[in-house]
Amino acid sequence: MGPAPEWRFDPLTGRRGLISPDRGDRPIHPTGDCPFCEGREAETPPEVLAIRDPGGAPNGPGWRVRVVPNRYAAVRLDLGEPGASATGASAAPRLREPGVGVAEVFLECPHHETAFRNLSRPQAADVIRAWRDRLRSWRDDGRLAFAQVFKNEGPAAGASVDHCHSQLIGLPFVPPAVADEVRAAGHGCVFCGWIAAELGGPLRVAESDEFAVLCPPAPRFPGETWVLPKVHAPAFESLADTEADELATVVQGLLARVHRAFHGPDFNLIVKSAPFGHAGPYHWRIEVLPRTTSTAGWEWGTGLLINTVFPERAAELLRAAA
Amino acid sequence: MGPAPEWRFDPLTGRRGLISPDRGDRPIHPTGDCPFCEGREAETPPEVLAIRDPGGAPNGPGWRVRVVPNRYAAVRLDLGEPGASATGASAAPRLREPGVGVAEVFLECPHHETAFRNLSRPQAADVIRAWRDRLRSWRDDGRLAFAQVFKNEGPAAGASVDHCHSQLIGLPFVPPAVADEVRAAGHGCVFCGWIAAELGGPLRVAESDEFAVLCPPAPRFPGETWVLPKVHAPAFESLADTEADELATVVQGLLARVHRAFHGPDFNLIVKSAPFGHAGPYHWRIEVLPRTTSTAGWEWGTGLLINTVFPERAAELLRAAA
Repeated sequence: MGPAPEWRFDPLTGRRGLISPDRGDRPIHPTGDCPFCEGREAETPPEVLAIRDPGGAPNGPGWRVRVVPNRYAAVRLDLGEPGASATGASAAPRLREPGVGVAEVFLECPHHETAFRNLSRPQAADVIRAWRDRLRSWRDDGRLAFAQVFKNEGPAAGASVDHCHSQLIGLPFVPPAVADEVRAAGHGCVFCGWIAAELGGPLRVAESDEFAVLCPPAPRFPGETWVLPKVHAPAFESLADTEADELATVVQGLLARVHRAFHGPDFNLIVKSAPFGHAGPYHWRIEVLPRTTSTAGWEWGTGLLINTVFPERAAELLRAAA
Repeated sequence: MGPAPEWRFDPLTGRRGLISPDRGDRPIHPTGDCPFCEGREAETPPEVLAIRDPGGAPNGPGWRVRVVPNRYAAVRLDLGEPGASATGASAAPRLREPGVGVAEVFLECPHHETAFRNLSRPQAADVIRAWRDRLRSWRDDGRLAFAQVFKNEGPAAGASVDHCHSQLIGLPFVPPAVADEVRAAGHGCVFCGWIAAELGGPLRVAESDEFAVLCPPAPRFPGETWVLPKVHAPAFESLADTEADELATVVQGLLARVHRAFHGPDFNLIVKSAPFGHAGPYHWRIEVLPRTTSTAGWEWGTGLLINTVFPERAAELLRAAA
């Protein structure tokens, strides 16, 4: 292992950034045998969760979904008290802090499949239940303030391994962008009314009994789409087993539409859920971001994204791609 | 031309995004004849500025640097009053607004060169003076609140044409990320003291009489580096002709170091300058962002970037790459 990860603070711009040298060591797009396939369990750290048929031994074959600590973790839980350097007696502004947190990887299938939309429906539902269970586990652990589950599919979306997988990163603080969103949500749930209205409007893509599939009001990428529960629910951890089955159908259906309507783009999938212990009106959602446009000097300088497809047009294309 | 560009506002998250369908029409990496080479002036809109030897006719050959409106402009100045939809009598929250602004392209050399570091020194200085002159022109015009000059070199940095070029985009409002930074700068210039201190510290890369080259305290990408005037100056427009000569030497020297130290990365170069008419303590700078890492679900969900190289280490590598 290299030097421990650190948060660095920029007093000039007010930004913070994580520097994690170990991330630089991870192999990109390995072309040899896949370390995430069944039978290669020794190449990953010992599992923290596995869904397997009865009788199988831990860390051996026979699993359907397997969750392991990230071997190239961006943050680590063994670096002491989070925020300790910021709470000392010194009045100096904090400039660095240990990179405390957890990073886990979900191996989504034992065989070598590269597209989540192609997993069997029960397999996809197992993955979604594993996301929920790891979030529950870290919520109950008490050391983290926030965790995010996300999935990068394809190199343009930042994936370094092509075997179907997703990740969880948890932190002892709430990221500023998440805190901003919680603030914008105000005191009543703005999402509940928006979902009900838009299911009859031009941003509607699809729906099921429990879930709405909508393009957002100001999409960042062409074809950006959100899946949201119709009934108010702040935390993804509250998902019931039967809801996971229905959500698998909805998410796989959406990814198939995105694939057809936007020429098979690489994409990020993000589970947006309330910070642990958050008491406000958050409404969880899954975001799908097709990475069909790139970020350049304009975006990095101003924080403003340029999209090329209106959300009403994207919804029309996605509806037609059933 | 397609539908006019629009700002869309997301009341759920508090974000705004630009939707500009014409951007989707631009050719990516054309492999045929280069539209930015001398002799192809008819393929770009009429020039708004050109540096050429005496006697040459506008929009013909004989130029050294040429500035033209962007044929695939993300924003346009012919869409009516900026913000008109936000200032009506209605109390409803604004959800859309015309995409008002300007977009220009700097053709940085008449011959087909793809790397700014390889331009002749006088050529690079002419480019820098053209950046300054267009910023001056839009400042004096009075219709814009902010403009940014930036350069994308290489496809991973978002460039769609490989001939050396840069861009200016101007808006009738100050982007939120820029406003945040102006707020963080407070009431005295935090940059002046930082520059003086760091020129004797581990973030120092190089310096000239007028300029400091430093790695920032919380870099977003491995090898991110800033060029700043040592003497306080809020606006890039104030650059003197002789300073442009010196700045060309410094920037080309930095880009050569980045090329050697970080394996020839694609990069964004951003001219960060105070909003037009800003009276506070802004300190202009040029940011160079090597695009050696990608953004994935974690970054898009949380706004937190993961870098793999500490700034002190990046500065060490850049110093050694003279």
